[in-house]
Amino acid sequence: MERQRRLTKPPGSLGRLETVAVRLAAIQRRDAPTSRARRVVLFAADHGVCAEGVSPYPKEVTAQMLENFEAGGAAINAIARTADAEVDVLDVGVGAGTKSFVRDEAMTEEELATALRAGVDAARRAASEGVALAGLGEMGIGNTTSASALTVALTGRQAGEVVGPGTGLDGPGLLRKAEVVGRGVELHGLDGADPLRALRCVGGLEIAGLVGFSLEAAARRLAILVDGFITTAALAVAWRLCPGVASYAIFSHLSPEPGHRALLDLMRARPLLDLELRLGEGTGAALAMPLVGAAVAAFNGMATFSSAGVSDRA
Amino acid sequence: MERQRRLTKPPGSLGRLETVAVRLAAIQRRDAPTSRARRVVLFAADHGVCAEGVSPYPKEVTAQMLENFEAGGAAINAIARTADAEVDVLDVGVGAGTKSFVRDEAMTEEELATALRAGVDAARRAASEGVALAGLGEMGIGNTTSASALTVALTGRQAGEVVGPGTGLDGPGLLRKAEVVGRGVELHGLDGADPLRALRCVGGLEIAGLVGFSLEAAARRLAILVDGFITTAALAVAWRLCPGVASYAIFSHLSPEPGHRALLDLMRARPLLDLELRLGEGTGAALAMPLVGAAVAAFNGMATFSSAGVSDRA
Repeated sequence: MERQRRLTKPPGSLGRLETVAVRLAAIQRRDAPTSRARRVVLFAADHGVCAEGVSPYPKEVTAQMLENFEAGGAAINAIARTADAEVDVLDVGVGAGTKSFVRDEAMTEEELATALRAGVDAARRAASEGVALAGLGEMGIGNTTSASALTVALTGRQAGEVVGPGTGLDGPGLLRKAEVVGRGVELHGLDGADPLRALRCVGGLEIAGLVGFSLEAAARRLAILVDGFITTAALAVAWRLCPGVASYAIFSHLSPEPGHRALLDLMRARPLLDLELRLGEGTGAALAMPLVGAAVAAFNGMATFSSAGVSDRA
Repeated sequence: MERQRRLTKPPGSLGRLETVAVRLAAIQRRDAPTSRARRVVLFAADHGVCAEGVSPYPKEVTAQMLENFEAGGAAINAIARTADAEVDVLDVGVGAGTKSFVRDEAMTEEELATALRAGVDAARRAASEGVALAGLGEMGIGNTTSASALTVALTGRQAGEVVGPGTGLDGPGLLRKAEVVGRGVELHGLDGADPLRALRCVGGLEIAGLVGFSLEAAARRLAILVDGFITTAALAVAWRLCPGVASYAIFSHLSPEPGHRALLDLMRARPLLDLELRLGEGTGAALAMPLVGAAVAAFNGMATFSSAGVSDRA
């Protein structure tokens, strides 16, 4: 903070970038924080709730997109390349996904533990490999339905308030989705008091992976860039378990899904970007990486009034 | 547009980035647009209106910052480096600046023509040197006062509605600034009908340079990234002279200066970023360059549903 005031610019004139630089310095406990190396960690899994007709895309798309990620042809591949970020894809349940949460608990205790562990391991690996900025990403046809159910459980809002079109659901489809979400939360008797039970009953395996990742990243002082609605739902579960997690997170973008705003309000968080992105995959997180890099560069690289011989204000 | 629909993502899911990519393809008349090379063109000049006490910084800071730009120590240098953009600084009147517009016309016809010509030449040079994305930047202590006067002339709003703190003016200073702006517009009898006369009477030499640059960039199909309040005032003058100019502009960020919103409303423009930046120098334009680069990369580099074997929606 002290160094910010001496840089050759009017105080506060870099706006929210100044907060980002200071946040990163605090996370990393370094006077000169770094935004490199950068990695998008993309968890993928299938959702049994697809059987209820909650997505315009067939469930098979999750597996097909996994191949697309590996081949480098997805939006996240193209965007991460421009942000100098690698993409690490973790299959935590493609094929062997969750059960439909209006018929059963989405996952068993053991499945939940395995997915959480995969996330913890990925964060440990990232930290030990020198990653300084980890973008959270996800893929899973049907996962806005899971995230909506988690949002209802965590915020106490009505399903109709938090459900949105996801990848492009129309009017009648939206009503069906809201009904499925409301029915799932009621069936399992969920509220925000037991976030892990909510995650197990209506969440997704990729969401569980993201929860594990977020908790371990905080423990290792690794800054995370939260993407959109799904990753924010994961962060909200982690935050309910351990509120300090939020101090290690930078929120990258605001999704048009109404549930996203509800979760951000819950955590009093405000994302950097508002570009009407609703793709997921970590695309918003990757887009925000250059902003974090620029914030750090200004913080570390600028001259001070005295070093540059520039007159400060009277 | 046709290619966008076949990319492996839900239609529209990249939000405003899709519009940016299509806009750039149209400007460049290329199926695969490019965001490289990138250059921030930073016009600097002094403002006689500083004598009226409208800025907390002394006028000398403009010249000192010019040295800071050349030495690479300013915010724009640090941020442009992270965006792979070069910074081209053009002194169009540091030392020999404008006269105070509450005492005289800010510049003569000849001074106006020289500054416009400097901008035209800079755009011609950028285009011939292969620049694909030109960020508009400016430096000039006192120039939010000039931009505010231009805003009043162009929009017909009251001075009190458009004047803001600039680099950090306080309450009484703000009232004085609004009074100076209103007095200048009245003294010269300005309205939006003659934008060049408004530019000459209350504008700045760096603003005139930016007007020339914008007009010539459009003529050469060179995309420009508009920065904040000052550069938007320049673009609004160019747009009043030639409305087609707006088709070659991408607006990078929303400044907290109230006059900026007034000008954006006038042109029905919406910037990409809202990060509470109020530094100028082209910092917002440089920050938006990686977003444009990512938009282009997704547009050009993604697989299509058929090439990747991904099922499209039913």
